[in-house]
Amino acid sequence: MINTNDTARILIEALPYIRRFTGKTIVVKVGGLPMTDPERMRSLAKDILLLHSVGIRPVLVHGGGPQIDVEMAKAGIEVKRVEGLRVTDAETLDIVRMVLVGKTNRDLVAAINALEPVAIGVAGEDGRLLEVEPVDERLGYVGRVTKVRGALLHAFHDDGLIPVVSTVGADASAQPYNINADDAARAIAVAMKAEKIIYLTSTPGLLEDPSDPTTLVHRLTAAEARRRIADEGVTGGMIPKLAACAEAVEGGVGSAHMIDGRAEHAILVELFTDEGIGTMVTTQNEIATENGVTTENGR
Amino acid sequence: MINTNDTARILIEALPYIRRFTGKTIVVKVGGLPMTDPERMRSLAKDILLLHSVGIRPVLVHGGGPQIDVEMAKAGIEVKRVEGLRVTDAETLDIVRMVLVGKTNRDLVAAINALEPVAIGVAGEDGRLLEVEPVDERLGYVGRVTKVRGALLHAFHDDGLIPVVSTVGADASAQPYNINADDAARAIAVAMKAEKIIYLTSTPGLLEDPSDPTTLVHRLTAAEARRRIADEGVTGGMIPKLAACAEAVEGGVGSAHMIDGRAEHAILVELFTDEGIGTMVTTQNEIATENGVTTENGR
Amino acid sequence: MINTNDTARILIEALPYIRRFTGKTIVVKVGGLPMTDPERMRSLAKDILLLHSVGIRPVLVHGGGPQIDVEMAKAGIEVKRVEGLRVTDAETLDIVRMVLVGKTNRDLVAAINALEPVAIGVAGEDGRLLEVEPVDERLGYVGRVTKVRGALLHAFHDDGLIPVVSTVGADASAQPYNINADDAARAIAVAMKAEKIIYLTSTPGLLEDPSDPTTLVHRLTAAEARRRIADEGVTGGMIPKLAACAEAVEGGVGSAHMIDGRAEHAILVELFTDEGIGTMVTTQNEIATENGVTTENGR
Amino acid sequence: MINTNDTARILIEALPYIRRFTGKTIVVKVGGLPMTDPERMRSLAKDILLLHSVGIRPVLVHGGGPQIDVEMAKAGIEVKRVEGLRVTDAETLDIVRMVLVGKTNRDLVAAINALEPVAIGVAGEDGRLLEVEPVDERLGYVGRVTKVRGALLHAFHDDGLIPVVSTVGADASAQPYNINADDAARAIAVAMKAEKIIYLTSTPGLLEDPSDPTTLVHRLTAAEARRRIADEGVTGGMIPKLAACAEAVEGGVGSAHMIDGRAEHAILVELFTDEGIGTMVTTQNEIATENGVTTENGR
Amino acid sequence: MINTNDTARILIEALPYIRRFTGKTIVVKVGGLPMTDPERMRSLAKDILLLHSVGIRPVLVHGGGPQIDVEMAKAGIEVKRVEGLRVTDAETLDIVRMVLVGKTNRDLVAAINALEPVAIGVAGEDGRLLEVEPVDERLGYVGRVTKVRGALLHAFHDDGLIPVVSTVGADASAQPYNINADDAARAIAVAMKAEKIIYLTSTPGLLEDPSDPTTLVHRLTAAEARRRIADEGVTGGMIPKLAACAEAVEGGVGSAHMIDGRAEHAILVELFTDEGIGTMVTTQNEIATENGVTTENGR
Amino acid sequence: MINTNDTARILIEALPYIRRFTGKTIVVKVGGLPMTDPERMRSLAKDILLLHSVGIRPVLVHGGGPQIDVEMAKAGIEVKRVEGLRVTDAETLDIVRMVLVGKTNRDLVAAINALEPVAIGVAGEDGRLLEVEPVDERLGYVGRVTKVRGALLHAFHDDGLIPVVSTVGADASAQPYNINADDAARAIAVAMKAEKIIYLTSTPGLLEDPSDPTTLVHRLTAAEARRRIADEGVTGGMIPKLAACAEAVEGGVGSAHMIDGRAEHAILVELFTDEGIGTMVTTQNEIATENGVTTENGR
Repeated sequence: MINTNDTARILIEALPYIRRFTGKTIVVKVGGLPMTDPERMRSLAKDILLLHSVGIRPVLVHGGGPQIDVEMAKAGIEVKRVEGLRVTDAETLDIVRMVLVGKTNRDLVAAINALEPVAIGVAGEDGRLLEVEPVDERLGYVGRVTKVRGALLHAFHDDGLIPVVSTVGADASAQPYNINADDAARAIAVAMKAEKIIYLTSTPGLLEDPSDPTTLVHRLTAAEARRRIADEGVTGGMIPKLAACAEAVEGGVGSAHMIDGRAEHAILVELFTDEGIGTMVTTQNEIATENGVTTENGR
Repeated sequence: MINTNDTARILIEALPYIRRFTGKTIVVKVGGLPMTDPERMRSLAKDILLLHSVGIRPVLVHGGGPQIDVEMAKAGIEVKRVEGLRVTDAETLDIVRMVLVGKTNRDLVAAINALEPVAIGVAGEDGRLLEVEPVDERLGYVGRVTKVRGALLHAFHDDGLIPVVSTVGADASAQPYNINADDAARAIAVAMKAEKIIYLTSTPGLLEDPSDPTTLVHRLTAAEARRRIADEGVTGGMIPKLAACAEAVEGGVGSAHMIDGRAEHAILVELFTDEGIGTMVTTQNEIATENGVTTENGR
Repeated sequence: MINTNDTARILIEALPYIRRFTGKTIVVKVGGLPMTDPERMRSLAKDILLLHSVGIRPVLVHGGGPQIDVEMAKAGIEVKRVEGLRVTDAETLDIVRMVLVGKTNRDLVAAINALEPVAIGVAGEDGRLLEVEPVDERLGYVGRVTKVRGALLHAFHDDGLIPVVSTVGADASAQPYNINADDAARAIAVAMKAEKIIYLTSTPGLLEDPSDPTTLVHRLTAAEARRRIADEGVTGGMIPKLAACAEAVEGGVGSAHMIDGRAEHAILVELFTDEGIGTMVTTQNEIATENGVTTENGR
Repeated sequence: MINTNDTARILIEALPYIRRFTGKTIVVKVGGLPMTDPERMRSLAKDILLLHSVGIRPVLVHGGGPQIDVEMAKAGIEVKRVEGLRVTDAETLDIVRMVLVGKTNRDLVAAINALEPVAIGVAGEDGRLLEVEPVDERLGYVGRVTKVRGALLHAFHDDGLIPVVSTVGADASAQPYNINADDAARAIAVAMKAEKIIYLTSTPGLLEDPSDPTTLVHRLTAAEARRRIADEGVTGGMIPKLAACAEAVEGGVGSAHMIDGRAEHAILVELFTDEGIGTMVTTQNEIATENGVTTENGR
Repeated sequence: MINTNDTARILIEALPYIRRFTGKTIVVKVGGLPMTDPERMRSLAKDILLLHSVGIRPVLVHGGGPQIDVEMAKAGIEVKRVEGLRVTDAETLDIVRMVLVGKTNRDLVAAINALEPVAIGVAGEDGRLLEVEPVDERLGYVGRVTKVRGALLHAFHDDGLIPVVSTVGADASAQPYNINADDAARAIAVAMKAEKIIYLTSTPGLLEDPSDPTTLVHRLTAAEARRRIADEGVTGGMIPKLAACAEAVEGGVGSAHMIDGRAEHAILVELFTDEGIGTMVTTQNEIATENGVTTENGR
Repeated sequence: MINTNDTARILIEALPYIRRFTGKTIVVKVGGLPMTDPERMRSLAKDILLLHSVGIRPVLVHGGGPQIDVEMAKAGIEVKRVEGLRVTDAETLDIVRMVLVGKTNRDLVAAINALEPVAIGVAGEDGRLLEVEPVDERLGYVGRVTKVRGALLHAFHDDGLIPVVSTVGADASAQPYNINADDAARAIAVAMKAEKIIYLTSTPGLLEDPSDPTTLVHRLTAAEARRRIADEGVTGGMIPKLAACAEAVEGGVGSAHMIDGRAEHAILVELFTDEGIGTMVTTQNEIATENGVTTENGR
């Protein structure tokens, strides 16, 4: 059982963070995989609502790879790839759009609205939120974000709503495109001058020794992240994640976080404790101090 | 060729209507069928944008029956009906939602945004816009609207956006339901205290003699509409349309219109001329006068 | 009879102009002559009110030469001239002021207020709207505008009023002066950063061949206007008109128009159609395009 | 010479009045006669500007009988009367309007603007400020005020302007009428819920003994004024003045004053001293106390 | 060590309370005794600042009995009592005021401002915040609060300040009076429509068995509190405390709390956990539910 | 007796000053000595309230030397001095604070609130209004102002309050310090960009011949003041006063005044008459003119 001293300690630690983040935008990227688990959806929905309730302005950005694969299979369409990337022809795009906008997004919106009716689904096409250009003609309708109309999402926040964004964008002629969700989340965070971007992953964060969870790197700078990538000090799936974090911070986002989406309420622990739960990438590694009180981690 | 006198006459007729409707909400219901014709989509999009451009606040509400049928067929699911109404089980609902939210709505939003990026797709689940209860347990997830959160749509208008609503709603547990689009449009118009609701149909409006387009009834009261239905003076598909118009007006909407969606720019002609193009249902049949000038039709 | 297609076409043409001019200031100069015809007064009053009704901010500036001559004759005072210009001594000034402020202005205000009570008469002396210096000592109390207090007229617009200005000004000691109405209108348009200035004349506009109305010049730049004047390509009364238009545009007014005040509702046709009805002077002769749609004339 | 004690005493007396009247509307009626004396015009203009400068909102209402008579004579038109009242036919109305709006009003506006450019002339026709009906068909275009659009004058005050009103009104068809200035001033004060109405007269105020200025009645109630009139305790020209004061107060104006317009700066002395200079009519004759301090006269 | 699960749990419990109390006024009464211990002052100052930092609007009300006694002794003045209450003559009042306003209040303000400069000392005389009448003439200048100018404290909150109130009041003639701090705090909380009043005491709260801290009564209604007092179920110093709590709640304060001021950060634990740390008095004992979630204790 | 002409003259002189100072901040420094005379307190309180009543924003800054000496004597503490300056050890500081904040300030606040409850006592510690550093370690807790948080006082004015400041400040650790009141007043006036600072003294102002009150210097520039000090043209207590005035003006305060606090309502006469009552120090000695009217003294 937790005694009152521990409770007071946690609250004293948390309250300044709550104060600091009130009114700030925090972008949270969640992949398609976690969304197949209703329990994780509920936990995520609750965290997002708690942030919202204390005046933080969350934006949820989601992918939907596994769900798309299921529908592609149902429709009997073969998935084609060029250099590992999914080719998106008109038929595929139709399914991508139906799944992301009409199903995955819906489920996430519903999970939040079941608790409090403040979530609103937004596709990148709405108000042409995400303007794109083709990435590579061989890939078809796969787009790279060239412009984000962040004012739209700010307006939703002003209206008391939580935007849940599915990463389908459009070019100037309103032709829809599929977009990589990690990149879209970063572009949105940069355009909104977000305080933080949080990537929910399936690892504890960056580990010095990938096989040892106790070697978690709590904090590093964007420059260090770039160096580790160049030095091949990180491997595999961690490379694009770490690069995305570095790019977000370089683009002006206050800090970028990789945290373990499988841990219950990971977002709350990451945001409101000195220690945090995952890896934080910032511009500088200085120890922040506020009112003369040194905060260990400055989260 | 039109001479300047005619032009002046049309403008003099139109300007007072533009003034009167500025800042007012106008709900437009469009069925799934017109949306299969790209040309009609473009014409509709242009009209809606012109209304928006002069300060009118349009809400588009759409159905999607034909599109759903196509996807049902693709998925190899048989459509079941009870007393002519589509039974919506969980599997069907999934398709309905994907089609309405992820496809039909998208196409309408894209048609507008191709001209100006101000359209935003909204499902009845977003911010729990449309709260429903089951219509009949034999029909499964088919809902009747019990509450409309009109403030959400007003907020979009305040943000300079045009909401395009797909008629999927949710109950208090956030379980989605399919809703009849005509009814949803009426419920929205009533909740928003709309100035007008316009049903785009495939007939010229109410005809005294259904076989003779020159017998168009330009204007009647809700009471007269009710009487004609009771007297069996109207038949077939016209009955529910006329009833919906009467119900909207009785609910406080300024007027309800049935106009021919196949005529180019029918909405503009209906709104901005004395004569109009279809059938208008109002509370009273009085001749409105403004500043001492009698307006023939008071549209 | 006009069919609905034509109506729709005219509306589609007009609505973007209405949108573009909403909230903008448009100065209309009307001479003393048209004001002797009650029918033209009514037509003008109606046009001005229609502009006002869709959110445009009109300023009417009027002269009153013929009316002054009548009163001078009644009072038995001989009109003296120096190089063709009326000499204004104290006695004459008294009559000029009584006629312009107490009669001509009143008639114009009354014509508008008979339809809707929003017109307000303003003399250049009110709030020292028009500050002047003497033009030439031989002319007596004839002034040239040195300062316009445009904020006063903007305030009237903000209060929902239409200012009708009689062109009597005052010097720093509040001594009144008579002012040329064409010049006063231009000075007001420049000071208010008006979108347009419209001179109501008794010709169709600038004609290539003064004897042939079909040779109307629809549009030219200020530079071209200056060139034509220098080349003596225009003659007689057209010179000062064209020069005034050029000067207005050079002073920052969006465009200057000469239109035929004798044509019914000429202002509406000029403002809200691509073709227009008279001659428009602009800075550049480029074809304006908006949202990718080329507008022939860009009025 | 005034010593500092006297100065301090006067300021201590005046400051609470300044505070009390700040933001309040005070209507001042001045007849045509004083306006023939430039010196009195300057003194009046200065007083009005001083009130304006400390945040009081003055409205000047003027007549112009003597000036009209001069112009009538010039034009060789005979003045007709019915029971002592001037008959106003169309020709006379034209002269009345030219003189009041185009001359008398102008002179008053100029007198103020010579010091500070904040005066604006307003006729009762402007924005249909004064709506009238005929008094008696035998009198022709002589009107009785039936409606005052006080919002117009409040708007001028909000814009930092001092309205100077000439008492020409209009009926619903915008036909102009001549109006008695005393009545118009009262109607304006009542409609604007003015704090005070001040009639500038050519007597010291109400005297117990008309031949002895030391018998000035400083203060009486509307009821007492009515009683004195009924008891024939007042005579001659004093009767309509006293009745107008009583009517203003009964209509909700805070107090009505008759003061000697011939005394320099009479308005300031009346407003800002306990003793005052003329006769004040109020609802009740109670001694007002503020913050426990009894004010002798409570002006 | 606390694990992340516990942390998440505490945060999930606390966030809804933070949300609920944001923007609400919470009055905290602290006696003179705790203020003699610098460590407790620091802990209290930190708690108050944390509340302030998350948008809660705290008001601190303090006494100063021990400090007054010290100064009385220094000055060699004997303390007189009537029925146990301190008699306050003019000389005593002088010392009371100097100590409360010039010393105790200063120390509390300084303790907060040492962390963040937002505290402002306010005496009940300032802006005549606390208006009083004499309690009993035998007691001299001892006052009972008759009026609280709560707007003053709301204005300080609006200005981002934390008011620290010393309980010296004044009568209508500005004569100062000494006031019982418990009563003053209650009067302030009632006048400000506070969400809560918290009495910091030197006991854990109301105990069923005064000798056994585990018999703490977590929650009771005002009616139950009254009954226990009447039934002599509570004794000694607890009676006036419990009565003050009941009176506050009956006066409209959301809830009244007695908590142990000796426990570190007792205020945070009481406000932000379900369990709380002391005794809460409310109007009704119902279990509050919010969004369908039953909160055990509803703190 | 004062006749109405004199009254009018005084008002005409005063009203423009009232207008000019409305909304402006005026800092008034009063020493401890005058505050020992209840009659002068009442007169001062009335003047300050009259300024407040016409929209001027006064700040009162007070000292309290004599009162501190009395309490030091009572407490039997010997006053120590270094080069004529009072040494303030911890024990002395305690008394200084109790007297200034808990007694002198209270008396001044009470004098104003007895008339109208708008005064609020503020110590330099409140909201850390006056931040200080030690002047000289030999003097102990005697501080020099390094920062003024003027926004706090502006906020009080915005709330309709009159701040009365006692000159106890604090360093960054919230340790209190005693401050010279003349210097504190100047620092406040500079920080608030005050229109004026007024030092209430016990002399008529700067005299050419200190023994002859008729040789009063009405006005001089800061440069002249500096020159007179350098030239030893002023002597004794006048030197620091004159230097403080010069420093205030050099810091951006509009003007600095030394006036005789013993003269009744000296502040009103100084502020609202051309002649004034004391000595005014300004940047330039030019004769100010406003609207073409030369004001003798430009006060």
